Formats: sequence, C-alpha cells, structure tokens
Amino acid sequence: MSAGPELICPLCAHEGGVLLLRQHKLRIVRVAGAPDAALQPGVQPDALAEAFPAYYRVIWNAHVAEWSDLSEAEQGLCMRAVSAVERVLRHQLQPSKINLAALGNVVPHLHWHVLARFDWDSHFPAPVWAAAARPPPAERLHALRQRLPACDAAIAALRL
Amino acid sequence: MSAGPELICPLCAHEGGVLLLRQHKLRIVRVAGAPDAALQPGVQPDALAEAFPAYYRVIWNAHVAEWSDLSEAEQGLCMRAVSAVERVLRHQLQPSKINLAALGNVVPHLHWHVLARFDWDSHFPAPVWAAAARPPPAERLHALRQRLPACDAAIAALRL
Repeated sequence: MSAGPELICPLCAHEGGVLLLRQHKLRIVRVAGAPDAALQPGVQPDALAEAFPAYYRVIWNAHVAEWSDLSEAEQGLCMRAVSAVERVLRHQLQPSKINLAALGNVVPHLHWHVLARFDWDSHFPAPVWAAAARPPPAERLHALRQRLPACDAAIAALRL
Repeated sequence: MSAGPELICPLCAHEGGVLLLRQHKLRIVRVAGAPDAALQPGVQPDALAEAFPAYYRVIWNAHVAEWSDLSEAEQGLCMRAVSAVERVLRHQLQPSKINLAALGNVVPHLHWHVLARFDWDSHFPAPVWAAAARPPPAERLHALRQRLPACDAAIAALRL
C-alpha cells in the first residue's frame, strides 16, 4: 500500500481518534482535539474537534476508498454503526442536527464523519468545513465536553 | 408542516433539482446551476452546481430530518440508491473521489449529496463547502458538463 513512509495511510497506521469500539470489519472513534490527544498516546489531534467536540468517526478497517466498493451486506453493517452512533448523540445531546459525511479526498480510506451540530456552534447552519460564522462559544463548548464521557460509554457499549 | 409560506420546506415544495428518477419512497435529481435551471421551469438553481456539475441528490420523499428516523429497511433502500448513483458517476466520469453527505442544517429534510470530485476542481482536496483553492477551470468544467447527459440517462434507467 505504500512506496515509502510518507505514503502510509493514516487510517491504516493509526486508530483515527480515541478508540471506543472495534469489530472485525469496522471501528468507532471519537475525534480528538489537540488538548485531548495530548493525553492519549498515539492519538492524532484534529483541529475540527476543538470547535466540534461531539465528532465521531465510523472507520472501515480495510483500506477501501469508496462506499460502493463495499458489498450491500457490508454497507448494512456500516450503516447500522453510523445510525447507532447518531442515535446515541441524539439521545445524549439533543443536537440541532446530525451531520453525516464520507468524503475522503485527503485520506481515501472509507470513514464516516458523524457530528452533532448545535444552533449555537461556530458554523451553524453552514457545514463544519465552511468559514466560521462566529467565535466558538467557550462556555457552551465546555458544557458539551462534560457530556462526552456519557456518549463515549454508550458507544463503547453498542452491540451492532 | 408550515405556519406560513416562508416556512414551507423547499424539498416538500420542489423536486430539489432536475428530476431523473422517482419512486414511492425517494427520488434522484441532478442539482442544477443557474444557467441549467433557467432552462427548466420549476427547478431551483444551486450555486454549488456551477463549480461542481456532477452533483446529484437522493432525496427521501417524506419530510424526515435525520437518517436514524428511517427504519433499517428504508435505510437499505436509500443506500442502494446512493450507491447506484455513485457507481454511475464512477463508471461514466472516473472521478478522483466520490463525496457523500447528509447535512440538512439549512433544509432538515433528509437528502444525500452525491458529488463527483476531480483533482483539478476548484476546491480539491478540500470539501466543496470550504474556500476555493483555485478558480474553476472553464475548459474542464465544459468537458465535464458534456458528459452529464450520459450520467443522467444511466441514473434515470436504474432499477433499485
């Protein structure tokens, strides 16, 4: 898969966040901001997670680029995981909206972004990849971060 | 669903693009830029489609906000449609990457964005919602637009 260390896929080399659940075919992680990642050896920080703490990924373990590379059964398994994460976030956090995306332009290894969005967040209603509409509200973000351990625990306990 | 005309959901009021396939539960449209929409009565133009012509949507017909509001069978049907559109785009256009997303922050009526991305496009490898990295290359876009009728025809002929 690689002609040199600079070409190693980061989702083959690393978990892609704080590992919550690993199965044979897929894993679920919470994406960590720099302060969070500094506490966890081996976790790569992601700048988006600082403004969007309720940011999870469902990552297909095999190095597959596109959604339609999966069989229908594999897609079903993967979507059960995405839906289960979404349900945990809805139940625990009552977000304004859930955002789902499989992009992979930079890292073409199939992974679903599952983000809880709030009408007070720095970008709402724009996508998280757009320009910010306002500064991230520190108190709200702090309160949201306090609720992540319950989300993490519920995700780690999922039976898919 | 509405207390006044300004609150009518645009995906309840309009097809959401150039209608290619309609089934009981969902429909598939190509998102139209302003010049394209001007030729088609009732089609609402979308600025993104001008820089990203190979931009399709799978729209759930019922006014449902979140992916996990669908049953597993409904999700399966919806993902068969998303995968089928993706396969058409891969086969017809050989894109650098397919991007899939269900956001709905502005229009909370379940719809999947299915976009073909190219390493020459104005934003690659950033998401289409991010800032542009370069001007849209007019000749490449023109050549891509010439290939859309074949995509549209293949999508209209899908049996899901």
